[in-house]
Amino acid sequence: MQDTQVLMGHGSGGLMMKRIIDEVFLQSYGSDFLREGNDAASLPVPAPDERVVVSTDSFVVTPHFFPGGDIGHLAVCGTVNDVATAGAIPKYLTCAFILEEGFAMDDLQRICASMAATAQEAGVALVTGDTKVVNRGAGDGVYINTTGIGFAPASRMLGGQYCQPGDAVLVSGTLGDHGITIMSCREQLGFTADLQSDAAPLNHLVAAVLEAAPHTRCFRDPTRGGLASTLNELAEQSGVDFMVDEEAVPVKSAVRGACEMLGYDVLQVANEGKMVVVVPQEEAQAALAAMKANKYGADAALIGEVLEAAPDRKPRVSLRTAFGSTRILDMLVGEQLPRIC
Amino acid sequence: MQDTQVLMGHGSGGLMMKRIIDEVFLQSYGSDFLREGNDAASLPVPAPDERVVVSTDSFVVTPHFFPGGDIGHLAVCGTVNDVATAGAIPKYLTCAFILEEGFAMDDLQRICASMAATAQEAGVALVTGDTKVVNRGAGDGVYINTTGIGFAPASRMLGGQYCQPGDAVLVSGTLGDHGITIMSCREQLGFTADLQSDAAPLNHLVAAVLEAAPHTRCFRDPTRGGLASTLNELAEQSGVDFMVDEEAVPVKSAVRGACEMLGYDVLQVANEGKMVVVVPQEEAQAALAAMKANKYGADAALIGEVLEAAPDRKPRVSLRTAFGSTRILDMLVGEQLPRIC
Repeated sequence: MQDTQVLMGHGSGGLMMKRIIDEVFLQSYGSDFLREGNDAASLPVPAPDERVVVSTDSFVVTPHFFPGGDIGHLAVCGTVNDVATAGAIPKYLTCAFILEEGFAMDDLQRICASMAATAQEAGVALVTGDTKVVNRGAGDGVYINTTGIGFAPASRMLGGQYCQPGDAVLVSGTLGDHGITIMSCREQLGFTADLQSDAAPLNHLVAAVLEAAPHTRCFRDPTRGGLASTLNELAEQSGVDFMVDEEAVPVKSAVRGACEMLGYDVLQVANEGKMVVVVPQEEAQAALAAMKANKYGADAALIGEVLEAAPDRKPRVSLRTAFGSTRILDMLVGEQLPRIC
Repeated sequence: MQDTQVLMGHGSGGLMMKRIIDEVFLQSYGSDFLREGNDAASLPVPAPDERVVVSTDSFVVTPHFFPGGDIGHLAVCGTVNDVATAGAIPKYLTCAFILEEGFAMDDLQRICASMAATAQEAGVALVTGDTKVVNRGAGDGVYINTTGIGFAPASRMLGGQYCQPGDAVLVSGTLGDHGITIMSCREQLGFTADLQSDAAPLNHLVAAVLEAAPHTRCFRDPTRGGLASTLNELAEQSGVDFMVDEEAVPVKSAVRGACEMLGYDVLQVANEGKMVVVVPQEEAQAALAAMKANKYGADAALIGEVLEAAPDRKPRVSLRTAFGSTRILDMLVGEQLPRIC
């Protein structure tokens, strides 16, 4: 690539745009769909009785590169994981860049290479894209939107509305790693020696859990707002209470220490490579074993259960603390740490 | 909505984000899919032998409101039109906002209302979304990504690679309206009394052309880079030449005047509500009549033809001028006017 920086002309629709597409995007992650060069990608016919599942996310994290990943890795993982939560096999990603004039072409190439590697691991193809360039000062280097498309058996019933009293709640590993890593980088707090982002594509882990625990009620990745927001969303969708056992929640000691120092509740800190799973009690051990057998699920744990909600109040999430007391676990209200994804 | 401005907390994943989703996005354009509240939308099973077609675009236009439309209208039209170019019926849109802290909530609500109205006209549902908030100074009020999903008969062969010597080239109306309107607004040139953006959803026009001219080779909307870039792309994809008759190209007199004054080539100016169509010669009149019968195709015209490319050079696009001479019509090189979409 002869240009060392992103220029306004790279978003022009003309020759310079063709050059950035050919020499950066196609070079990094070109698929047959992308190489066709049409404005829309035509994907294969799904199998009979397959539903189409779609999810979208924009990524605005700073810094762009951090221990354990970068904005490109995150942009693939985040959307792959959201598609997987519907029990679908993610197959295709679209990718739209908003680049700030002056952004280093080397950094863009590193980000695209990272997207290519993560897409390969997840087994998804980048099929169509878009490039916009905004003036210097109207962006923050690079923003990425990915939209993921997957196919799921039409008969599969999975979603936040299906949790039932008696169900078990599992999490696929330690909480808080991503949020605390980003904060530590940004504020130069120096925790990062022991820490890295957990960002990872979890579609294979989800598929393994579905195989082992076919009556799984729902998957959700506890990103912004952390476990607390995720469980409060599920409680509201299903009209049930949740009880979480604080001691059972896996947290790395470096993360625990950082949270104590900063006054954060680790259950409200963002994760990018973790999955919350709700399954019928009788399939809990099978689901746990399936997660532990996956490379991203070694620290998986059974952390709580679903309870019937009292008829006279809104559904709620409670935490049984290490001291045996119980407290309400609220949704994050405002913003703890912005732009972590 | 109690908040008058967008705050960082609206992107938090917590209660404030839930509020902006419920009170702005769901209020404006809530669909059953969106109301389910899961991270991914599960769409119905396509008919047997239907392909899934997908296209993505981010929208960064300034000003956000302009004669004939706004960034929300554009965000729906642009993606609907790209999906339609593949001969698909657009059905579903995802919508991801990148909001700048401090953006006026009233403006966001106007934009969302406009998206809702345009989506209704096009017959598409907004099925899933994402909300990110970036710090003041790291954006430009609002950026919108939409990704569109449609279904097309699996047997339909449409694309820039299918143009053949002898084919006719049509355009659905006057060129340059959008680009000149935006420029006039931004530079306060005062042309806008006579002008407005042509942004429009063209999926119904495309469907009518396909009905009338079933062997249509391709559709493409001449957005950034204008007609010149579009035809050069098609020439390269199909390995053919194009000849355009300058006098046949419909251009409003206000646009022609502005282009002459500013030294712009109207054939390189962006459009947001026009479609270039390549059809076999024998279906040209039927395609033209179908366009003229549509509300967005009244000024449609037959503007040129596809020629065999010479074997000893790259395919090219030529223009037969009003004086009878011929000149090469090049792709736009750099940036004429940034951020027009």
